[in-house]
Amino acid sequence: LNILSLVKPTVRSLKAYEAKNVPCRIKLDANESPYNFHDIVSSLDNISLNRYPDPDAEGLKKILSEQMNIPHNTILCGNGSDELISYLIMTFGGPVLFPVPTFSMYSIIAQTLGEKRVAVELDSNFDIKLNKTIKALDREKPSLIFLSSPNNPTGNSFSPERIFTILKHTSTSAIVVVDEAYQPFSGQDIFLPQLRQFDNLVILRTLSKIGFASLRLGYMIAREEIIHEVNKVRLPFNVNSLSQTLAIAALKKSEEINKTVDTIKKEREFIFQSLSQIPDVTPYPSSANFILFRVKNAESIFREFLKKGILIRNIHSGISNCLRVTVGTAFENKIFVNTLKEIVNNERNKI
Amino acid sequence: LNILSLVKPTVRSLKAYEAKNVPCRIKLDANESPYNFHDIVSSLDNISLNRYPDPDAEGLKKILSEQMNIPHNTILCGNGSDELISYLIMTFGGPVLFPVPTFSMYSIIAQTLGEKRVAVELDSNFDIKLNKTIKALDREKPSLIFLSSPNNPTGNSFSPERIFTILKHTSTSAIVVVDEAYQPFSGQDIFLPQLRQFDNLVILRTLSKIGFASLRLGYMIAREEIIHEVNKVRLPFNVNSLSQTLAIAALKKSEEINKTVDTIKKEREFIFQSLSQIPDVTPYPSSANFILFRVKNAESIFREFLKKGILIRNIHSGISNCLRVTVGTAFENKIFVNTLKEIVNNERNKI
Repeated sequence: LNILSLVKPTVRSLKAYEAKNVPCRIKLDANESPYNFHDIVSSLDNISLNRYPDPDAEGLKKILSEQMNIPHNTILCGNGSDELISYLIMTFGGPVLFPVPTFSMYSIIAQTLGEKRVAVELDSNFDIKLNKTIKALDREKPSLIFLSSPNNPTGNSFSPERIFTILKHTSTSAIVVVDEAYQPFSGQDIFLPQLRQFDNLVILRTLSKIGFASLRLGYMIAREEIIHEVNKVRLPFNVNSLSQTLAIAALKKSEEINKTVDTIKKEREFIFQSLSQIPDVTPYPSSANFILFRVKNAESIFREFLKKGILIRNIHSGISNCLRVTVGTAFENKIFVNTLKEIVNNERNKI
Repeated sequence: LNILSLVKPTVRSLKAYEAKNVPCRIKLDANESPYNFHDIVSSLDNISLNRYPDPDAEGLKKILSEQMNIPHNTILCGNGSDELISYLIMTFGGPVLFPVPTFSMYSIIAQTLGEKRVAVELDSNFDIKLNKTIKALDREKPSLIFLSSPNNPTGNSFSPERIFTILKHTSTSAIVVVDEAYQPFSGQDIFLPQLRQFDNLVILRTLSKIGFASLRLGYMIAREEIIHEVNKVRLPFNVNSLSQTLAIAALKKSEEINKTVDTIKKEREFIFQSLSQIPDVTPYPSSANFILFRVKNAESIFREFLKKGILIRNIHSGISNCLRVTVGTAFENKIFVNTLKEIVNNERNKI
């Protein structure tokens, strides 16, 4: 039996997503928070491991709706935002439009589901090219538009006016998904208050970047009619009991979490200023919990870091010679900055 | 904006899966184990909540491969078997063939993904109708065949010879998925040793029925080439850290779990014998952790149970006047049996 002959052609040409666990001393590659709120595990003291999860995650939606001051039926929870992206594409189909470079899963999941992908380049400031995007919208008539703002891996927020223009332009033809995974680090909350104005707006948020990546808890916010449709393709028990219970406990700690977000923002400023002073290193302004920076030889610098037990991210897609570092603890960030100085200095001396 | 106009037609006609939480005193509706191995929660003592899960669930696959004595690259873990069913359909496409009545998610997920569904009726013993199935295979040329054995909601295992005939008949044309969610209660392990003989065989198993439904941990076993293809459509972090850690801890308790499985099998026999003696009640033989039984007026009996705080399942699809009860603790089962006697007696006196 030749298994490949039975596989859908769109899947056959795919490569599995590689997210290997590389052993390291300092992990600054995955945009995780460096702070572990482990004490919330005690919220599992009375859990019935033998029972299925609440299929509707009512308790979790209740606290989310209270904290955001929105109705609970405008919220849908997912096994990470990845799953919600998948559900959105299952519900609305393609083509799926997104700027590049951006979060890789929009493209990967669209391909997995056999939908056409339309990539539109960002401008030199990593902002949306409005004219080019409008033209692509008119030509390709996408069903879905994914805008990660702040954007990964570039770190900047897109101009809200450009996003509003896209929302208006597609108001009767497409769903615009503003992926706010990194919103807590931006100091802005622009789109949530606009949900009543834009029928076609969907917002994605997650607990992954603020301390709870292990939970895989993403949620989408949209008008009730959109939630109702996407809920049809949701697997009944998609968020397990452990994630639901721990997410509720995590959200109750929002004050403590906000303090860590403030610290991360200060540390981001420290990294940005420090990198600006290193020759041959150009950091890009960031509204997220990571910083993208350009170097002369990304691959070589990446490997030097790895040798020293420090894992950062080498951005291969779309932009050349760029590395991405997640903001860690003050201690980790100092080691990162000093190590980069040392590596760049050695590289310069080589030449 | 009319949202419906943007929704894929196949999704538009769907209804969301309803799995409401009904408050009750005794819960015998969801084929859960009545035993809560809560002490495994201590395995989370050192978890890094802020870090992403192991994308490949290596630790979990290691213990599974050791316990089943199969290579770890013949295993893929999912957020419940539901997710693996979804991945299989994404990978191999439709048509999707299954007998009816059976586990409802094969049909629901196929429809969600826009694939054609082919349902073939079971015979009067709830076994596979071989001739009719072979004809449907030749006519519809399905890509995937789902056989839940033991089958839900009927409780019986299908004849292995009939499954082998289907495996041979489709050896170069389709993937045959034997869903062994209830295998631990059957006392049989027929298909795992056949993986080398049948290239097109996929086995699904789960921790949900043996005490860990909260975790949402399903796994598929198949030859490496099949795992490799299905892994392409898997979301990178589909099984969260909590489930991975707890599943490993659960699997280490296999001896204790097996004891509860033995108890459940004995209690199943108690329920079967008891039900056989109630007039107007016909229980069907079961190899699973539940019993299907026929009554005169299922809806009325179901409601009477609910009034008394006992939740069982009213099987609406495919078979009329049948109820399904999950095997609970000895205490719960006695109450269930006595309550059924009482209700049936009252019903008879009414007439």
